[in-house]
Amino acid sequence: MNSSLRLVTSPEPGVSRYATLAQALRARVVAGEWSPGSALPAESQLAKEHGVALGTMRRALELLVEQGFIERIHGRGTFVRQGLAGASMLRFFRFDSGTGEVPVSRILQRSRVSAPAAVSRALGIGAGEPVLRVHRLRLMAEQPRLFEELWLPLDLFAPLADDDLASWDDLLYPMFARKLQVHIHRALDDIGFGQLSAAQARHLGLPAGHPCAQVQRSAYDLSGRCVELRITRGDAHAFHYTVNIT
Amino acid sequence: MNSSLRLVTSPEPGVSRYATLAQALRARVVAGEWSPGSALPAESQLAKEHGVALGTMRRALELLVEQGFIERIHGRGTFVRQGLAGASMLRFFRFDSGTGEVPVSRILQRSRVSAPAAVSRALGIGAGEPVLRVHRLRLMAEQPRLFEELWLPLDLFAPLADDDLASWDDLLYPMFARKLQVHIHRALDDIGFGQLSAAQARHLGLPAGHPCAQVQRSAYDLSGRCVELRITRGDAHAFHYTVNIT
Repeated sequence: MNSSLRLVTSPEPGVSRYATLAQALRARVVAGEWSPGSALPAESQLAKEHGVALGTMRRALELLVEQGFIERIHGRGTFVRQGLAGASMLRFFRFDSGTGEVPVSRILQRSRVSAPAAVSRALGIGAGEPVLRVHRLRLMAEQPRLFEELWLPLDLFAPLADDDLASWDDLLYPMFARKLQVHIHRALDDIGFGQLSAAQARHLGLPAGHPCAQVQRSAYDLSGRCVELRITRGDAHAFHYTVNIT
Repeated sequence: MNSSLRLVTSPEPGVSRYATLAQALRARVVAGEWSPGSALPAESQLAKEHGVALGTMRRALELLVEQGFIERIHGRGTFVRQGLAGASMLRFFRFDSGTGEVPVSRILQRSRVSAPAAVSRALGIGAGEPVLRVHRLRLMAEQPRLFEELWLPLDLFAPLADDDLASWDDLLYPMFARKLQVHIHRALDDIGFGQLSAAQARHLGLPAGHPCAQVQRSAYDLSGRCVELRITRGDAHAFHYTVNIT
């Protein structure tokens, strides 16, 4: 029964057989059958389970590789990709002190709030639904460098609303995976420029109105749901980013 | 004689046979045998010319596709990629007036100068060697939006030092290809934030010291030589860029 459910008998019009198959494999990952970092069964086994030719299964797996969903490790097999590690804000900034270390995180504030309109839109939840709002500071060599505001939908993140902040890691994404089985799979960072409010500036030890780079991140879990909205602000003069154009 | 020269008989140690072959094919493009946009001969013909198996030639061509040097167009064949089109600074800015049109270019200044140290380093030429320096303004809906300083090595760009500026196109890269057979193949854009000098601000109709986004571009020709250094400045508040992280 289980295996017949997986037969790819009627692909949607306009969607190729292997794209439909890729979707079905993805659903098995989202359902938790294979967790991030774990190996997939052999291609021949998967082809048998889904009742398709080996070639069709190979094309479906290739598509998932292109989508960054799985990866092949030469000589070892095919694995569900690990989520993002989370230190990536540093790709946008260069601080004197920065020698590759993970910034230390200091949580300034954590509270349940009703989602403002822009937040509920970004997170795809109803207006005013409860979210967890977190303000945190990130320090390098004991200097505050980045000020972050995070909004997390409470239906997924409720366990983080009351737990001991001392148990929080400097890197949030591995913690989301460990504590909540929420795996951040991809993110969109929107870079803009602005000026620090008095409160933001105070946290960063800069004058109010100081120019800042601001990165608005939308982060998505394995199922493609936006599960985090984050705005990171840092000194505009420390901003640096390189784009390769071909 | 010609075809025996192309035999890949002794690849460098540590370099695979097909990587060496890819290098040899690239050299034929750089030498002008196939110009950007033109079709390559059939794989079987190329394999014969280089005295290699068809499979080896296919892997070499795949490598050149990955490097963005050639592209396959389904059902039509394999082509040397066209150079960059040149309007790409707009990927970093959003102006009210900007509805996809190419900004109009106004050349403010053009002169032969000795390369400053930073410029000669970037261009890989001797300190003080002659370069063509160009200042230009880019306007959208008649509003000046971007101020650009360009440095171009005079050994390649001498014909642009004295010609009629009225013959210059708004897009420089297609003009470089047409007038000089210089094909810009890839570019590195380094993004930072700064403040406009009094002169820069005047050109853009902004107050001196106004925050600006600045993009320092190094552009490379088919042979991998850096042939253009450009610094583009625009209002920081119009800066916007999205990065997809997976």
